[in-house]
Amino acid sequence: MLFDLKLVETTYSKILTFETINPHIKNVEYAVRGELAIRAEEIKEELAKSGPGKFGFDTVVNCNIGNPQQLLQRPITFFRQVACLTEYPDLLLPENRDRVKALFPSDVIERAQLMLKQIGSVGAYSHSQGILFIRKDVAKFIEERDGYPSDPSNIFLTQGASTGVQSVLQLIIANSNVGIMIPIPQYPLYSATLSLFDAQPVPYYLNEEENWSLDISQLTSSLSTARDKGLNVRALVIINPGNPTGQCLTEQNMREIIDFCHQQHLVLLADEVYQTNIYQPTERPFHSFKKVLRSMGSKYDQFELFSFHSVSKGMIGECGRRGGYYECTGIDKQVIEQLYKVASVGLCPNVPGQIMVDLMVRSPKHGDKSYPLYQKEMSNIYESLRRRSIKLNELFNSLEGVSCKDAQGSMYLFPRIYLPVKAIEAAKAAGKQPDEFYCLEMLNATGVCVVPGSGFHQEEGTWHFRSTFLPPEELFDGFCERLKNFHKEFLVKYNGLKTI
Amino acid sequence: MLFDLKLVETTYSKILTFETINPHIKNVEYAVRGELAIRAEEIKEELAKSGPGKFGFDTVVNCNIGNPQQLLQRPITFFRQVACLTEYPDLLLPENRDRVKALFPSDVIERAQLMLKQIGSVGAYSHSQGILFIRKDVAKFIEERDGYPSDPSNIFLTQGASTGVQSVLQLIIANSNVGIMIPIPQYPLYSATLSLFDAQPVPYYLNEEENWSLDISQLTSSLSTARDKGLNVRALVIINPGNPTGQCLTEQNMREIIDFCHQQHLVLLADEVYQTNIYQPTERPFHSFKKVLRSMGSKYDQFELFSFHSVSKGMIGECGRRGGYYECTGIDKQVIEQLYKVASVGLCPNVPGQIMVDLMVRSPKHGDKSYPLYQKEMSNIYESLRRRSIKLNELFNSLEGVSCKDAQGSMYLFPRIYLPVKAIEAAKAAGKQPDEFYCLEMLNATGVCVVPGSGFHQEEGTWHFRSTFLPPEELFDGFCERLKNFHKEFLVKYNGLKTI
Repeated sequence: MLFDLKLVETTYSKILTFETINPHIKNVEYAVRGELAIRAEEIKEELAKSGPGKFGFDTVVNCNIGNPQQLLQRPITFFRQVACLTEYPDLLLPENRDRVKALFPSDVIERAQLMLKQIGSVGAYSHSQGILFIRKDVAKFIEERDGYPSDPSNIFLTQGASTGVQSVLQLIIANSNVGIMIPIPQYPLYSATLSLFDAQPVPYYLNEEENWSLDISQLTSSLSTARDKGLNVRALVIINPGNPTGQCLTEQNMREIIDFCHQQHLVLLADEVYQTNIYQPTERPFHSFKKVLRSMGSKYDQFELFSFHSVSKGMIGECGRRGGYYECTGIDKQVIEQLYKVASVGLCPNVPGQIMVDLMVRSPKHGDKSYPLYQKEMSNIYESLRRRSIKLNELFNSLEGVSCKDAQGSMYLFPRIYLPVKAIEAAKAAGKQPDEFYCLEMLNATGVCVVPGSGFHQEEGTWHFRSTFLPPEELFDGFCERLKNFHKEFLVKYNGLKTI
Repeated sequence: MLFDLKLVETTYSKILTFETINPHIKNVEYAVRGELAIRAEEIKEELAKSGPGKFGFDTVVNCNIGNPQQLLQRPITFFRQVACLTEYPDLLLPENRDRVKALFPSDVIERAQLMLKQIGSVGAYSHSQGILFIRKDVAKFIEERDGYPSDPSNIFLTQGASTGVQSVLQLIIANSNVGIMIPIPQYPLYSATLSLFDAQPVPYYLNEEENWSLDISQLTSSLSTARDKGLNVRALVIINPGNPTGQCLTEQNMREIIDFCHQQHLVLLADEVYQTNIYQPTERPFHSFKKVLRSMGSKYDQFELFSFHSVSKGMIGECGRRGGYYECTGIDKQVIEQLYKVASVGLCPNVPGQIMVDLMVRSPKHGDKSYPLYQKEMSNIYESLRRRSIKLNELFNSLEGVSCKDAQGSMYLFPRIYLPVKAIEAAKAAGKQPDEFYCLEMLNATGVCVVPGSGFHQEEGTWHFRSTFLPPEELFDGFCERLKNFHKEFLVKYNGLKTI
């Protein structure tokens, strides 16, 4: 009997194995949280257990994700104060008034009261498209930003921009013959989602020489190639400001892109989550695609555009909250109904995230009690980000065999690295991409975790990595020094750059 | 020139139309937020604009969703107090100590401090699988509940149970020939998700006569039929306690189900979100599938089980927060890695939701300062839910042509309704299902919004609806009265029940 049981067990084969699960899941690549990030976690655990002994450093610095508050960026006080009161409305009862008035400015209390009146409890499911009151505020924000009308019924609140992007791609991808144009290098959410939904990426290359700008000729040739292969190319993704590349598009370039999509019958997906991370505001201000589109006149009235935004980026950096929205422009009503139906299967975006969206789009105004502090916090973070972007850029450009374009926007730099032949050989021997190999050596030597360029795709034969410039400013010089020393030692170790 | 432009516009055809989007999205049905819910929203707006004038009521009562806090159930104080302090950690600074100590019990302050120490900021992305500290607490909770070990590395925190269910189904559905067994009636998340991912529902019928119990013979015949058709049936979904049907499975029945899955090589998905909504705790206590499985000995060591839980239900009802978890039992390590990879594309579950999961699984204990209030709040809600379930059940059973099984668990009753021939004819003429027609008449006459049984599927020729028993207790008699009067008038209007 016992023998029989054992037999059953050893012959029982799992239903779910790597071989038998959904093959599209297997095809997903997601480098931002890939091998490097996993190794970084291991080092963190070892450091916590045994101290810095075997490492030359005592902390891991996560420059692999745009996660400002993990690197100690302070949240915006006004936002957190309102969030706090909406979580525990009993604080607004008369018996607590005096104490609460001493702890919170009056406009915070008023805002929380207004919010609760509109929302009810943050613990209740909301409208699946997001709370109407908040969607109205989003529409107003868009109107003020762009100078063109926006309709709350065309806005979907989401759990961060990522889920919004995924919903829209899922809608567009009618079958596996659908192609979606994505930039190279790109934020891997896009390639991962296309793998997951079994669509075909149609890559177009950004021009590194011209500060990662976007040539229409590139779009045209990429599209022709794909259509020649018989793909049904339906949409173009633009990330502006760029991730990982940090460029900010000119208005002229945006007009050309819109024209291209219009002529070629493509839906435009504009990932604009870094719209306030703009570091050359005079030379390269941010323009939304919605605004540029509307400025082009009635010829483009039927143009189909989805624009994404988030509370995770900007100076807010409330990544953990998963809040965001997308606006549908020129999208057929029946199609919006279908998006709503799918949203309703997931019930609703989380309400604390929706509240943060509201705070982002209805921030304190001049004259409000909280305005001076809000303004100071926002501009301090902004100025510091700008300084750090410049400092890190200068560092990269000072290194032998490294060249790096300015950060016009976003939270990242994407330096190109030229690697010694011996390093490339060592990488090959280790079964790794050369830039992955470089980044792993950097992590092991310095504790700094970045993402290899190959995780974002890149022009063949070139190597890059993406680093945020988010380490705290007071530690930034030390951080730069670590990178500099590592790079020097790496070149020495692999016999220097014989070829460039 | 103007003429040309106009020509372009009128001939420009949308890329995205109802005909050209992802056909699987079109196939999704989701009645909980379907026509009834939309009509309810319209009535709400009309009431807000013009008052009750044209209606015989002044409020809409949403009994279509298990959304307790929308119907004024108060959140658990301890949970909200801790959430509040984690949102705005400045309250924990020494200068605020006295005021905050006067507003919050000491164990709340300690818990918030502990949480913040482990989490850092709620505004930072966490580990994609969920914060390890919280997953450890979940594992401990499961161990204490079941008496068997649980491993944090097998636990995924999610944005409510729904996203967990969707991730797991996406994993299992390797192609469109995959069949998934689902109960009828069922919570429409399941049928909707199968449509979305293009898998084949393999329905098995619950036995209404036997209080919606589950016969193994039903499972066997349903599975045979599906396999005869060539489907690759890979998994069985059980909702226990049931939704919409409210039954709670016996341990004996659960053993049979496990045995059936084991013999038939099926993964078991156990939706256990109503595990604390148990209204006959002596006769029908809740057992988790994990516990029953482990109690069956080593023969079942390789058995593959996913168990889902949520902060949205129970006495907590924090639906808007989107917090939940699932535990993988017997799932291959490589498969868990793939689930992790997909989770990482979405970055992380929202951190305030994760915090609520932690609070649920590590609630105040006897001796804690907050325990007496916590205990009182939990038992008041519980007792009230139980009373309301009984009262509504009695009401339904007192109506002519209505029969309703006890609520053993969950938040719903699912009465069967026998409809007059004239009503069925009127429904047909209106292009509606008879139960949908009945529910629409109910909504228009009383403002009470329920969900027609056809939204959950049901045995052919039978008609039901699902109603929560969540309206506040002080309004409950009035609510019952409205339903009673409506039903009487409906029967009169359609000439009574000539056939049953």
